[in-house]
Amino acid sequence: MLSRVLSLLCLLLCMSCAAQDHPSLSLTPEGVKMIRSELGNIGLFDQALADAKKEVDAEIELGIKVPIPKDMAGGYTHERHKRNFVVLQIAGNLYQVTGEEKYANYIKESLLAYAKMYPNLPLHPTNRSYATGKIFWQCLNDANWLVYVSQAYDCIYDFLSKKERDHLEKDLFRPFAEFLSRENPKFFNRIHNHSTWANAAVGMIGLVMDDKELVQWSLYGLPNDGINENEVDNDGGYIKVKGVRVAGFLAQLDLSFAPDGYFTEGPYYLRYAIFPFLVYAKALHNNKPALDILNYRDGILSKAVDALMLQTDASGRFFPLNDAQKGMSIEAREIITAIDVMYTYRGQNPVLLSIAKDQNKVLLDETGFTVAKAIQQEKEEPYIQRSAVFGDGESGLEGGVSILRADDACLVMKYSAQGMGHGHFDKLSYSYYDEVGEIIQDYGAVRWVNVDQKGGGRYLPENKTFGKQSIGHNTIVVNEESHYEGSVKKGEENHPELYHVDISNDNLQLISAKENHAYPGTKLHRSLFLFQDEDFSNPLVIDIFRASSINPNQYDLPLWFMGHLLSADFEYSKSMESLEILGDKNGYQHIWKEAEGISANNQFQITWFGNEKFYSMNAVLGENDKLIFGRLGANDPNFNLRNDPVFIHRKENAKSSTYVNIIESHGTYERTTEIPLSPFSQVESIELIEDSREYTILKFKSTKQNEWTLAIANENNSSEALHKLEVNGIDYLWKGVYKIFKNQK
Amino acid sequence: MLSRVLSLLCLLLCMSCAAQDHPSLSLTPEGVKMIRSELGNIGLFDQALADAKKEVDAEIELGIKVPIPKDMAGGYTHERHKRNFVVLQIAGNLYQVTGEEKYANYIKESLLAYAKMYPNLPLHPTNRSYATGKIFWQCLNDANWLVYVSQAYDCIYDFLSKKERDHLEKDLFRPFAEFLSRENPKFFNRIHNHSTWANAAVGMIGLVMDDKELVQWSLYGLPNDGINENEVDNDGGYIKVKGVRVAGFLAQLDLSFAPDGYFTEGPYYLRYAIFPFLVYAKALHNNKPALDILNYRDGILSKAVDALMLQTDASGRFFPLNDAQKGMSIEAREIITAIDVMYTYRGQNPVLLSIAKDQNKVLLDETGFTVAKAIQQEKEEPYIQRSAVFGDGESGLEGGVSILRADDACLVMKYSAQGMGHGHFDKLSYSYYDEVGEIIQDYGAVRWVNVDQKGGGRYLPENKTFGKQSIGHNTIVVNEESHYEGSVKKGEENHPELYHVDISNDNLQLISAKENHAYPGTKLHRSLFLFQDEDFSNPLVIDIFRASSINPNQYDLPLWFMGHLLSADFEYSKSMESLEILGDKNGYQHIWKEAEGISANNQFQITWFGNEKFYSMNAVLGENDKLIFGRLGANDPNFNLRNDPVFIHRKENAKSSTYVNIIESHGTYERTTEIPLSPFSQVESIELIEDSREYTILKFKSTKQNEWTLAIANENNSSEALHKLEVNGIDYLWKGVYKIFKNQK
Repeated sequence: MLSRVLSLLCLLLCMSCAAQDHPSLSLTPEGVKMIRSELGNIGLFDQALADAKKEVDAEIELGIKVPIPKDMAGGYTHERHKRNFVVLQIAGNLYQVTGEEKYANYIKESLLAYAKMYPNLPLHPTNRSYATGKIFWQCLNDANWLVYVSQAYDCIYDFLSKKERDHLEKDLFRPFAEFLSRENPKFFNRIHNHSTWANAAVGMIGLVMDDKELVQWSLYGLPNDGINENEVDNDGGYIKVKGVRVAGFLAQLDLSFAPDGYFTEGPYYLRYAIFPFLVYAKALHNNKPALDILNYRDGILSKAVDALMLQTDASGRFFPLNDAQKGMSIEAREIITAIDVMYTYRGQNPVLLSIAKDQNKVLLDETGFTVAKAIQQEKEEPYIQRSAVFGDGESGLEGGVSILRADDACLVMKYSAQGMGHGHFDKLSYSYYDEVGEIIQDYGAVRWVNVDQKGGGRYLPENKTFGKQSIGHNTIVVNEESHYEGSVKKGEENHPELYHVDISNDNLQLISAKENHAYPGTKLHRSLFLFQDEDFSNPLVIDIFRASSINPNQYDLPLWFMGHLLSADFEYSKSMESLEILGDKNGYQHIWKEAEGISANNQFQITWFGNEKFYSMNAVLGENDKLIFGRLGANDPNFNLRNDPVFIHRKENAKSSTYVNIIESHGTYERTTEIPLSPFSQVESIELIEDSREYTILKFKSTKQNEWTLAIANENNSSEALHKLEVNGIDYLWKGVYKIFKNQK
Repeated sequence: MLSRVLSLLCLLLCMSCAAQDHPSLSLTPEGVKMIRSELGNIGLFDQALADAKKEVDAEIELGIKVPIPKDMAGGYTHERHKRNFVVLQIAGNLYQVTGEEKYANYIKESLLAYAKMYPNLPLHPTNRSYATGKIFWQCLNDANWLVYVSQAYDCIYDFLSKKERDHLEKDLFRPFAEFLSRENPKFFNRIHNHSTWANAAVGMIGLVMDDKELVQWSLYGLPNDGINENEVDNDGGYIKVKGVRVAGFLAQLDLSFAPDGYFTEGPYYLRYAIFPFLVYAKALHNNKPALDILNYRDGILSKAVDALMLQTDASGRFFPLNDAQKGMSIEAREIITAIDVMYTYRGQNPVLLSIAKDQNKVLLDETGFTVAKAIQQEKEEPYIQRSAVFGDGESGLEGGVSILRADDACLVMKYSAQGMGHGHFDKLSYSYYDEVGEIIQDYGAVRWVNVDQKGGGRYLPENKTFGKQSIGHNTIVVNEESHYEGSVKKGEENHPELYHVDISNDNLQLISAKENHAYPGTKLHRSLFLFQDEDFSNPLVIDIFRASSINPNQYDLPLWFMGHLLSADFEYSKSMESLEILGDKNGYQHIWKEAEGISANNQFQITWFGNEKFYSMNAVLGENDKLIFGRLGANDPNFNLRNDPVFIHRKENAKSSTYVNIIESHGTYERTTEIPLSPFSQVESIELIEDSREYTILKFKSTKQNEWTLAIANENNSSEALHKLEVNGIDYLWKGVYKIFKNQK
């Protein structure tokens, strides 16, 4: 909070000293001069200019269209107004960069059309949001509009007459900004990505208009919002975080991120949320240098961008944690903005240039120009994805997310806080990736963003009934109930605890966390190792998942493997002529039960084929354990779900249960040679030789007959503690939480 | 047949005049000299040399392993012997190109090991083939071995002493060749790809050994095979084609291909079969130039290669007609051979170089060298995939396959003959592709080639019960029976008839064929148009499928669309809590019935999403038609089937039925922008305004309100015939089989 107070002081001191030049949001007169002097010489920037011209010229050709708002996302008026604000922003930059008045005129005429319509606009007729907009069905999109259009206005500010500006500000911009703030405090005065957009929108138009009141609201929130702490939004998220009454842009910076940049809603939403942060930060950097916004809270925006980049797979796609549509990646325009801004204003880190080079696009402004020029000068250095540990919550102590990487393998464990309304009930879940994509998937959200045919592009009912439920994730489900009884409220009141993490040794990394509140009376403790040895083509995931309870429970551990089942080394009986659902609630009702198997062995193996590769899981098997194959798609009246396969390891009527699994990627197949390379598991055996409250010891052997013993202390996470244990006449001694012993063939 | 007689004469004349130089199969002393003189200068060839060295050196390092045969495909001894023959062939070329004796010694030691084992080898213990091998489970693989190893032997012939050669020929090669021919006449004396391998193997070793008897057998077959016409192979294919007693390599050339190069088993098997044709042809070209093998039957091998290249999608993947594993493409080593040989010996056509460039690999022999050098000299010209029409059968008159292309769209209609044991019951079926891949799929074979976990890599039981069945294809199924009652014998006795094809106009292409024998008393006639107009983002497939019968039938027209159903404009009821099978036999037992709908309208529309694109089908709807959504996977005890979706348009209790469908690819979606472009169908209406025995007339309208009328004559395929018809007071006049009329908005 100290940083907020300091910056408030700075701001007050400087409020009168900044001369009001235009443009000043994403361009400055000096920047424009610099850009103009090098036009035609900087490849990527020239490309951005050519793309922008092509795009805007086509729209000018089409003519200005400002329809009376009526449609949901995907419908005509929604998509038209969305297109308008995007094009206006680009047109503004084009006017500045080229000096061609047709772009200024296009903006002017468009703004006049909006100014004509706006004063008489009622609330959007859809009325489906907790904060219904005027141009769009939700205020959020109205805020998007203003973030973009304030930039366009900024670019033609000096082109317009005083009279024209007065008209626009009186009939359009000031009422628009008031609507998003004073008239919608639940939308404006919240710690949430929606409000970040609102804060940025109101602040940016305030900067252009030199309207100090708007800037003040944007930075520090509305003084008195009177919002009740029980109010929720459409996704079931609380408007107010318990005990937090601050609001505004600086409060967002204080509270939205953990100290190391993790964003509680996860990377997909961070990607969305970071955009208004950065665009407004750029504007504040130009207009309120004394705020030193890019160093605010020890450079939190820079840390957030770093965190975001680390939460991607090998192709730069964000991990679909919580509500997230898959496929969103570093190529998104928000990340282009992030890279351009961070490179330009935060130390010109050359590894960012290699990301920018992959993006192959820059912004049509000073930051894009700076990046394009640096790339032209071949300043880039390779960006290396590394293992990373993120704490969640304002303090960073509310659980977190860790990413273990070795070669191209990438394991993501989620032991974070609930993540508000978009959070999933997926405590201690993990997902696993290789250089091609998903091996063990996180389903993501049940939503087809902007696809009108699927519920207008909004979250579908199955997102709640399946997407968020625990059985849809790779984690233990007790008695077919979701974690925290599937209650966001309970989820927000609790979180797992990091037990131990060690990413210092490339050949054996560990992330271990505990969750004691997801089920009353039941404790969950998962330790995930990423292990490398020359006996194995690729790293192994070693998963030790302990559940202990005061009650006898049914435990299910699902494995959402990506691919086609090739083989199982146990007998199973597959449903041949009819299929039934696996359960009747909490997501189970969406899973067809395809097959069930049992085995008298004390280990089992399944092998599957996906992405032209072979994968196996070897696991320890308890007596009477059930091995179930399921497939998604039941109780799905509108074909909203993908028909993905799942394997479930079930233990019934057990107080304590320990799952031990090894997941491996061992081979490949090429369709043009039809030669399978290493199609069989390289793990020969797996055995749990000790499992107590205090210690778990696992033994496994490779097909090359080398053997390892992996020991972990379950109750003492001191790195200094000495442990000694005798199992089957052998003494195991180690220091710290875990140790691996290799017994050479 | 005349060509066979002439070449026999030539051969007899020249038999004594060819001096026996070594090597002479894929290399010649002159060629080796030429290659050596340019080593280090020809990039692609130098790469081939480096790859070969790396591969063979690693094997030399590993040591020679010639285990006693015992395993099926995928098992150790199988894969080891397979690897051996591949490596030996490369080692031979390496010896010739580099002169390094370690390669010659490696071959010599390997051959001696085989010569030691072979005389005492019994039949392979698996005994699962109609022609069980000795080294492998089937003679086919033994023949593969000899085709490769004869080349290795050829390369070190002069390196060996006379005594060593005598030993190898007496104990290994001659008995090996006799085993494949005289001792297995059903394998050797057949018109089939298996026998082509056998013929090539025996001929090639005959050439190296200068064994005229073997060469004679290879070219003209065994004189008396005594094979009964009812004998079948493991796939249910007949050993002998009715009335055909000729055999041997030239007979294969006469009978395996249609005059324009189509191969009745389809492109996947042609890709496999062409290899021994080409390798032996290359050897014959060098050793028996008077045969002029590459011009035999008017250059049939060259035509076959051309046909093969045309039967690929935009990425060069072969259409999976009949039994075929998907993903096989022009990158296969057989096609590298085909391109290198055809370029070198058949006119050096520069468009082949652009294919070779895509392959980015050449053979380590004279043909590879020639291609690599031409690429280095930048001689290539672009290869353009074009529409093509292929007749099937020796005469080219037993139906066929046509490929219509416009832009990146590619429609493949199959009205070919049965295609022997690997044929599917898919008369008048089609599949549809775009630049990314499949839009409407042909399932291909139910097989995971060489993947041990799936039945040892062989055809799985579901290939017969589903893969070959009519319901698994995009064609009409009557009364839930497959075409020809699912009998290969009946299939081989009949074939559809081409009705009309016109690929002369890029904006409207037609392929139309009839099938009158698939169901007794029922006539099927399908006309598929590929139509382009600026009102549509991409070409439309217009499908008119007429069925007429003397009996009331149930007609099903399946659409194996690739992707996820987005919407349907009719009410359907989806099975929520249990799934049942769609039928009890002929492939229906493998389909879960997911949903069924009906509609009171006279047209319907479905839209799906696949490959990040939007596709729709608009279709004419009859009263009481049922609209069924199914999913593959029932009665599949070992998870052998993919869980692909299917849509089935069902008409019950109807004597005649005409299906009219328009399939379109209209829009795209990008996951990083989340913007759908053109997500809705661009077809507004579709109506059948006339449908009689003689004429079918269809009217359809775009969402831009332009309207077209498409007329086709069903009984008169003369291009000169004049047609006149009044419908709803409008006179339609046209000349030829079809005509499209545009009624501007």
